[in-house]
Amino acid sequence: MTSAAATQTGGVATARGFRAAGISARIKASGKPDLALIVSDTAATAAAVFTLNKVQAAPVLLCKEHLTKSGGLVRAIVANSGCANACTGDTGMADARAMAAETAALIGCPPEQVLVASTGVIGVNLPMDKLRSGIPQAFAALAASEGPQAAQAIMTTDPFPKESCATLTIGGKTVTIGGMAKGSGMIGPNMAPHATMLGFLTTDAAITEPLLRRALVEVVDETFNAITVDGDTSTNDAVMLLANGASGMTIGETEYAPFVRALRAVCLELALGIVRGGEGATKLVTVTVSGAASTKDARTTAMAIANSLLVKTALHGGDPNWGRLIAVAGRAGVAFDPQRAKVTIGSIVLFENGKPYDDRAPQAAAYLKATDVSVGVDLGAGSASSTVWTCDLSAEYVKINAEYRT
Amino acid sequence: MTSAAATQTGGVATARGFRAAGISARIKASGKPDLALIVSDTAATAAAVFTLNKVQAAPVLLCKEHLTKSGGLVRAIVANSGCANACTGDTGMADARAMAAETAALIGCPPEQVLVASTGVIGVNLPMDKLRSGIPQAFAALAASEGPQAAQAIMTTDPFPKESCATLTIGGKTVTIGGMAKGSGMIGPNMAPHATMLGFLTTDAAITEPLLRRALVEVVDETFNAITVDGDTSTNDAVMLLANGASGMTIGETEYAPFVRALRAVCLELALGIVRGGEGATKLVTVTVSGAASTKDARTTAMAIANSLLVKTALHGGDPNWGRLIAVAGRAGVAFDPQRAKVTIGSIVLFENGKPYDDRAPQAAAYLKATDVSVGVDLGAGSASSTVWTCDLSAEYVKINAEYRT
Repeated sequence: MTSAAATQTGGVATARGFRAAGISARIKASGKPDLALIVSDTAATAAAVFTLNKVQAAPVLLCKEHLTKSGGLVRAIVANSGCANACTGDTGMADARAMAAETAALIGCPPEQVLVASTGVIGVNLPMDKLRSGIPQAFAALAASEGPQAAQAIMTTDPFPKESCATLTIGGKTVTIGGMAKGSGMIGPNMAPHATMLGFLTTDAAITEPLLRRALVEVVDETFNAITVDGDTSTNDAVMLLANGASGMTIGETEYAPFVRALRAVCLELALGIVRGGEGATKLVTVTVSGAASTKDARTTAMAIANSLLVKTALHGGDPNWGRLIAVAGRAGVAFDPQRAKVTIGSIVLFENGKPYDDRAPQAAAYLKATDVSVGVDLGAGSASSTVWTCDLSAEYVKINAEYRT
Repeated sequence: MTSAAATQTGGVATARGFRAAGISARIKASGKPDLALIVSDTAATAAAVFTLNKVQAAPVLLCKEHLTKSGGLVRAIVANSGCANACTGDTGMADARAMAAETAALIGCPPEQVLVASTGVIGVNLPMDKLRSGIPQAFAALAASEGPQAAQAIMTTDPFPKESCATLTIGGKTVTIGGMAKGSGMIGPNMAPHATMLGFLTTDAAITEPLLRRALVEVVDETFNAITVDGDTSTNDAVMLLANGASGMTIGETEYAPFVRALRAVCLELALGIVRGGEGATKLVTVTVSGAASTKDARTTAMAIANSLLVKTALHGGDPNWGRLIAVAGRAGVAFDPQRAKVTIGSIVLFENGKPYDDRAPQAAAYLKATDVSVGVDLGAGSASSTVWTCDLSAEYVKINAEYRT
C-alpha cells in the first residue's frame, strides 16, 4: 500500500502545480544568479519556522506578519541572495514589503500571500531598483523545469546548489515533496522549532495547516536543526513549506507517518548538503553521543563536539585526537562519567573504562582519510542518544570569512 | 604610604625565597625545554584553582589531594610540557604521584608539599624514565635567576614565554608578586572559580590561606577566566599561587586591596600574553559588552562574541563586519533590544537606534589594521558591563591544530 520514500532527482518545482525561476538581478557584483521565485498555481497551505535570534531581519518579520494576515495561505516565495536586509531599520522593512508587493502584483494575489527571504551581508540596504527590474524578469522565467536555476540563485558562499525530492505513493496516488536549501556559513542551531539557514520546500499533498506545521517542526529538529558549520545562528534563517494539494491526495493522521518519513528524507539530504558545502569543508562528520542521561544532554554534548574548533581542526588534519572529544564532553555541562565513558572514531574504540588505546591511532588515522567520517562518545551516564552533523575546519574557512566583504 | 602596583621585569622566581629551573627532559621530541621546577625555601601558603572540566587530568586530581593533605602548605611545583597525563587511568595517577615523590625526596619534604602540573597531548602516558632523570637535573639547576628558563619549559604551542612581576610597597616594606603562564590552545572559560590554562604565581608576602584564596579567585575571574582563544576548556587547567612570607610583610584586611591590585596587574599581563600568543593569533581583541541587564548577561554575550568564528575571522581580515557582532548578541540568549542596541569598532559607531552607518566602514577598516583592537556592543537592556579578551582566527590556527600530533 505505502511505498517507502525514495530520494530522487528533482527540487522545489517538481511537485505538481509549482513553478520556479532563478535569474541575475545584479544584486551580486559578480553577476551570478541572485533572485529566486517560487509560485504555486493555487493558494498553498504554508508552514514555516524562523530563526530564534533576537535580531530578526526584515524579511523574517514580514513573513510572520504575512502568515498571520493570509491565514497561512501562500502563492509565492521571493528570495534574494547578496544582501540580507538585516539591521536595516524602517527602510529595510519597507523594502521587504515592496518585494512582496511587486511579486503579488504580477501574480494577481494579495501581498500577504507572498513570503520573502534574503541572505547575504547584514546592515546593507537592498538595491530596490535592481529588485524592481529583476522581479518581473524572474516572473517571466517561471517554469516547472527551472528549480535548478532557483537553487543557484539563493547561493551565497555555497560551493554547489542543494536540491532534493522524494515521492510517496499511498493507495495508488503519488505525492511529491521537493525542496532546495542554501548554507553555508552562520550555520548553527538555536533550539527548535526554528531553522538555521534558508530552506524552501513544496509538496502537492493536501494537508491542513496544523498537521503541516507539526510535520515541519518535527522534521526540522532532526535535520536542519541538527547540523552546524560554525555554530553561529543567522538573523535570516527560515525554512518554508508550501502544500498546494495538486496531487489530489490528502494527508491525514493515517498518512502522516509516511509523509513525515518522505519529508525527512528530503530535509536530511538538503541539510547534509549544507554541511558538505559548509564554508571550506572537506569532510562530512557524523557525531553521535550515546549513554546520555537525557536526549537534551546527548544533543548538547553532540553540538559542543560538532562546534569545537579543536575537534574540527583535528578531523581536518585526519588526526584521531580522541582526547579532544572527551575533553569537550567533560566541559559540556552534562551528566558524564569519565570512568564509564567510551570514545570511538568510526568503529575503532580509542578510550574505554578509563583506559586509552593509543596503539589503535594509526588504524583510526587511516579511517579518517575518508570524506564521510563518524565519531562517537558514550557518556556512560544513561541510555539517551543524539546524532548531529558537522564539517571539518580548514584554512579555507578562514580565508572565506576573513575576506567575505572585501 | 601605598605605592601603586607597577608591572616590571621578573617572573616566578623574583619574589624572595623562591628559585626556579627549566630544562629539557627529552619528553618533547624536539628537545626543547619541557620540565619546570619552582621551589620555595620554606613551606609556602598555597591557593589554587583548577579546571571545571569533568575530565580532570591526574596532576589536577593529585594537586587537590595534596592541598588537603598538606593543609595548604607547599614547597614546590613540578610541571612538564609535551604530555598532559590526562585520560591515562591508574598509571597516570601513579606517574603524577611519582613526579611529586621524586621532587619531594630531593627537597626533603613530604610528597604532599609538592604540586604537579602537566600539559600536552591527552591520552598518552608520561615517559617516567625521562622524568626520573630530568627531575634531579632540574633540581640541580634551581636558581633565583632561572625564572625565564622555567617559563620556556612549560610552553607547548606558545610562540613566546609569558612572565610578569609587580611590587607593592606599604609603609616602607616591599612585597613582590611574580608569575609565569602558558597557553595557547584549548583556552576557554568555564565559569569561576577556576582557571583556563597553566599559571604559576609566587609572592614573598605573608598571608593566610583564606585571604590568599579569596584574592586568587577574585583576580582569576577578571583575568585568566576572562580570556578565550578557542573556547575549549582543558582537562589540565590550573592556576597556583604560593606565598612564603620571605618579605616579612603580612597582608591583612588593610593591605588586601593594594595586594589584589598588584596580583591583578600580574595576572592580567600573563592572561593577555596568552591571548597575544594564542594559536595563530595576529591580533589582541578587547570585547566589551555594556547596557546589559546583568553582569552575567554581559559576560555571556562578550564570551559568545569572543568565541564566534565569524567575528574572529572578520577581525583577522580587518573587515568591520559589525553585523556579525550584533547577530551573535542576538543569539546569546540574553536580554537584548535591537532597537536600542549600539555596535562600535574602536570608537566608531556602526549601528545605533536601529540604523546602520555603513559609510563609516572604511574608517573602521583602517582602525582594524592595528594589532590591538577593541569592539563593543551595547545591548540596550540595562547598565551592567563586562570585558573579555580574545584573538583573531587565522589559517595558521587551523594549520597548528590539524597537525598538532603529526
